[in-house]
Amino acid sequence: MTVIYDKVALIGLGLIASSMALAMKRAGLARQITGYARTPDTRATARALDLCDVCDSAAEAVHDADLVVLCVPVGAMAAVMADIGPAMKPGATLSDVGSVKKAVIEAVSPFVPDDVHFVPAHPLAGTEHSGPRAGFAELYDNRWCIVVPPEGADRNAVNRLIDLWRGMGANVDEMDADHHDLVLAVTSHTPHLIAYTMVGVADDLSRVTDSEVIKYSAAGFRDFTRIAASDPTMWRDVFLSNKEATLEILGRFTEELFALQRAIRTEDGDHLHAYFTRTRAIRRGIVEAGQDTDAPDFGRSHKVR
Amino acid sequence: MTVIYDKVALIGLGLIASSMALAMKRAGLARQITGYARTPDTRATARALDLCDVCDSAAEAVHDADLVVLCVPVGAMAAVMADIGPAMKPGATLSDVGSVKKAVIEAVSPFVPDDVHFVPAHPLAGTEHSGPRAGFAELYDNRWCIVVPPEGADRNAVNRLIDLWRGMGANVDEMDADHHDLVLAVTSHTPHLIAYTMVGVADDLSRVTDSEVIKYSAAGFRDFTRIAASDPTMWRDVFLSNKEATLEILGRFTEELFALQRAIRTEDGDHLHAYFTRTRAIRRGIVEAGQDTDAPDFGRSHKVR
Repeated sequence: MTVIYDKVALIGLGLIASSMALAMKRAGLARQITGYARTPDTRATARALDLCDVCDSAAEAVHDADLVVLCVPVGAMAAVMADIGPAMKPGATLSDVGSVKKAVIEAVSPFVPDDVHFVPAHPLAGTEHSGPRAGFAELYDNRWCIVVPPEGADRNAVNRLIDLWRGMGANVDEMDADHHDLVLAVTSHTPHLIAYTMVGVADDLSRVTDSEVIKYSAAGFRDFTRIAASDPTMWRDVFLSNKEATLEILGRFTEELFALQRAIRTEDGDHLHAYFTRTRAIRRGIVEAGQDTDAPDFGRSHKVR
Repeated sequence: MTVIYDKVALIGLGLIASSMALAMKRAGLARQITGYARTPDTRATARALDLCDVCDSAAEAVHDADLVVLCVPVGAMAAVMADIGPAMKPGATLSDVGSVKKAVIEAVSPFVPDDVHFVPAHPLAGTEHSGPRAGFAELYDNRWCIVVPPEGADRNAVNRLIDLWRGMGANVDEMDADHHDLVLAVTSHTPHLIAYTMVGVADDLSRVTDSEVIKYSAAGFRDFTRIAASDPTMWRDVFLSNKEATLEILGRFTEELFALQRAIRTEDGDHLHAYFTRTRAIRRGIVEAGQDTDAPDFGRSHKVR
């Protein structure tokens, strides 16, 4: 038990917040965890699961908290912050878990009291499930959390937040907001948009039935549907708030896709083979970096919870 | 033990063939299994693994075999067939495991002796690994195998091949070659091309380093790299031989992607949210159809082999 904060308040009680509550409890990182969710249903579920001390208002949850973490969709953060700003304890730290950072900083900063330390962060972890029941204590184990301290941030506040994420099992890196948003546009946002698109195309095709698509989705498409099943509200907000970087990467993607399409049309097998050989090496890098398993029976023998 | 064929010959000894050998042995479906691979290295590996009776020529492997299965890349099948056709036993069945069916039938048929039954098939199973060491007996368990009997095919020969695939754990469906190629263009070929493209884009981007891409690939991109790590030769041949269906689906994909791109540019959140909600339902169908697991900790707790 290494207590890092006496009291942590989680605003929003979905997959990310509920996993944080369970991970903090696992390592004894907070003496008290409070939480608030907008819908009575979610609050009732969180109470039934005994996730944390569930409050009926955000202001009540953040009262006297040493750390407040915004775990609501990116598009809702400004309104939540306007609500809780006046209730926050002087000297407390404010953080968030949003998938974009520049837009969050711009939206939230005007409502952050002068005596509160704002240290944005983004844990790169998740599943296609949402809600408080989806959380589990191991979600952050060996995953990366990117901390994005604004210029002139209080170093003690930053380090304490980093200690919390490490205590929840994560590896931590720091970068600036612009770079974070570009890296995420490449590794997460654009892949999600592409997966959504491909799943939509399959659904539209009248000559192939949905049940055929579903039955024969063994490889390729199955992984796309997993990605495309993520929370719609979260992802709408991601694309609206990381618009420029996503559009840039999409532009490059379309360019390369057209080159491969032309290689198929002109039957340029050498071009295709060389391209596919190059991309294979990147996969090896990911397995070696420990961010995925090399087991060949993926998608079948997961641990049942 | 229900023996279905006295002697089965596997031409090509990669992931698919080696998994077939192990699955046939598991259920005792053949009294003898012979095999041949073009490279001495692969033959030596298959011998060391004791996968089957490895022969030093394809003609020797198919001699007296009741079933011969072509397990080489689609682009190599015609040449292999020209080689083994004269050595095949009258009345034997010829099959294959190619990911496209129309092009294989066109390429292979001219070399099939009149007294041999040609019953093309395609097991929808695989991993991103290749070679004889990648095989495992469970690869086909609860996966689909699509059998594509030509018009006027011998029904007994077709049913016997279906029994073999069921014995190896697969579910079996029949369809014609054109429809097979369209269904696979949607569920597998186009998703693979898109994944290859996205991984290539990430690799090209000089402002984001490869190590950043690899470190932060927690969700989304990680699944793409898994797809994009598949065998380059196999996939080159797939795109060259299922050119028309792939180009058709790619055209639709690009159209939809442009619509989503425009929604991002014009900040049409309702369009994005509605689209993402629709694709989520397809995922539920796949989980309910038993083609994937619903476990939320994918990519982490696979059974270690």
